[in-house]
Amino acid sequence: KTAEPTSIVEADPLPSWNDGPRKEAIISFVEDVTDSASPNFIPVADRIATFDNDGTLWSEQPIYFQFFFALDRVKALAAEHPEWKNKQPYKAVLENDMPTLMQQGEHGLLEIVMSTHAGNTTDEFDSLVRSWIDTAQHPVKKRRYTELVFQPMLELLDFLRANDFKTFIVSGGGIEFMRPWVEGVYGIPKDQVVGSSIQTEYDYNNGKPIIKRLAKIDLIDDKEGKPIGINRYIGRKPVFAAGNSDGDLQMLRWTDANPLMSFQLYIHHTDSLREWAYDRDSHIGKFDIGLDEAIEKGWTVIDMQTDWKIIYPFEKNQ
Amino acid sequence: KTAEPTSIVEADPLPSWNDGPRKEAIISFVEDVTDSASPNFIPVADRIATFDNDGTLWSEQPIYFQFFFALDRVKALAAEHPEWKNKQPYKAVLENDMPTLMQQGEHGLLEIVMSTHAGNTTDEFDSLVRSWIDTAQHPVKKRRYTELVFQPMLELLDFLRANDFKTFIVSGGGIEFMRPWVEGVYGIPKDQVVGSSIQTEYDYNNGKPIIKRLAKIDLIDDKEGKPIGINRYIGRKPVFAAGNSDGDLQMLRWTDANPLMSFQLYIHHTDSLREWAYDRDSHIGKFDIGLDEAIEKGWTVIDMQTDWKIIYPFEKNQ
Ligand SMILES: [Ca+2]
Ligand SMILES: [Ca+2]
Repeated sequence: KTAEPTSIVEADPLPSWNDGPRKEAIISFVEDVTDSASPNFIPVADRIATFDNDGTLWSEQPIYFQFFFALDRVKALAAEHPEWKNKQPYKAVLENDMPTLMQQGEHGLLEIVMSTHAGNTTDEFDSLVRSWIDTAQHPVKKRRYTELVFQPMLELLDFLRANDFKTFIVSGGGIEFMRPWVEGVYGIPKDQVVGSSIQTEYDYNNGKPIIKRLAKIDLIDDKEGKPIGINRYIGRKPVFAAGNSDGDLQMLRWTDANPLMSFQLYIHHTDSLREWAYDRDSHIGKFDIGLDEAIEKGWTVIDMQTDWKIIYPFEKNQ
Repeated sequence: KTAEPTSIVEADPLPSWNDGPRKEAIISFVEDVTDSASPNFIPVADRIATFDNDGTLWSEQPIYFQFFFALDRVKALAAEHPEWKNKQPYKAVLENDMPTLMQQGEHGLLEIVMSTHAGNTTDEFDSLVRSWIDTAQHPVKKRRYTELVFQPMLELLDFLRANDFKTFIVSGGGIEFMRPWVEGVYGIPKDQVVGSSIQTEYDYNNGKPIIKRLAKIDLIDDKEGKPIGINRYIGRKPVFAAGNSDGDLQMLRWTDANPLMSFQLYIHHTDSLREWAYDRDSHIGKFDIGLDEAIEKGWTVIDMQTDWKIIYPFEKNQ
């Protein structure tokens, strides 16, 4: 570093966060546990930080972005499936009839996910996701989905990594839906992504090996599935976990059960103007018992409207 | 770097390897793919190296070391199971009757593994493995098991990491049997271990969350299970893979299918004096069709007797 006067003042590691108790809590935690003289010091190998994705690292309204991918896949595959024109839940998708689609229930939604996510190889699915994520636009925000990530959370990921935390995604979203783009967008390697998965099958394929994606659930990485997924993929309890809904409560409790000092972060979607505002009654990202427990246990609950100067990276240039 | 004359000669990155075509092939590969001017350059994110464990990073004779752990667990648990005295396969274990034990077949061996590995929590199992690995001795070598790792392979792991490869274990052994000690012994973090696993269940346990280990197979990380496990945990094809038996062939083929330049390494156990010599007819670590395919495809097959100056780290001081 140079000896210029500016280098005396430490740069703000979280420039898109407003000063206040939440920003201070995060910075104090990191400074404390990385100080080898502190009783709360955490060895580098234990500095595991896990982040939910939908609603925590990027937006999730009006429906999970992966579901838009599935709907686009139904339309792309419709020519091969003429029977879909008269068969629910496909009919509703092809007619852009969202109310009817939402009435198809969990079984209908699962059918859409399986028929659009399985039946191909891992390499083929990777290509499909890449070309979709590079081009598709959010219907309300009119932005590519990867533009709808949260700038303050990108800074938090960087800040943790600069302090030798290993950052992971632990999401209910599909692991193979996230892996193609999270390296570039979040700086999180593919092997540090935990997500919902389907079963696979290896085929030697006459010397050109492939892995086929089967229409059978492997792991639902939500609620109880989050600590299960953390144990399966990471093998130790995190010391830092961030989420935004009741589906993250088990992950935050698992982190809280770490005998090492730990930090639990909840994102509360309170900004109806810049993003969306929803919590206890939302059909997506319901945040109800998690909010009560966070308050009771003194976990850090981010108020998006108050705590974040900007939401999305593109606002930096506005 | 300093200008001292000694710095002109580069240190040998693989000092326990004898000079020769195999050592040269490894070093040339690494130098080539990390040279940004080379047509074979591999970006850092793709520098994934996967290593089998039993017979590749440590010895595996006369039986897999994890099986010695299971036998010791049977003996430790026998007081709680008086019925085992007269019930196979436990009777054979308690009477140290190996011939009868080996006649119990796959079903008997699986029963021993399940009754000694499941039925506890992940934290409890971690403690059991730690105290066993810290104290138990190999019956023939009279050394702790972690002393029976291969010094040349430790150097290879270091060499790859020094060149920004991310090193993983991909083993048929139990993932939770390996995780407690591989960080200290191989420098491989817990979350970079892929192995066979059993299913688990999360229990809130009145505010003290636990994960219970169930007597149900999740993944058998051997043969076809290796590419499956690599896809599940790592999410991309490796560019370097090392194994020692037919159980690694699918992993090496999967690596070979990487469009990027890749390296396939087989360890051939040829040293009956310093370690063990076995291949085509062995009941442990059978190396038969893998050996034929390696020769046919020009993969690198290490001859332990010829290529390695020493086998175990403790030989450095002898
Ligand atoms: Ca979420
Ligand atoms: Ca092996």
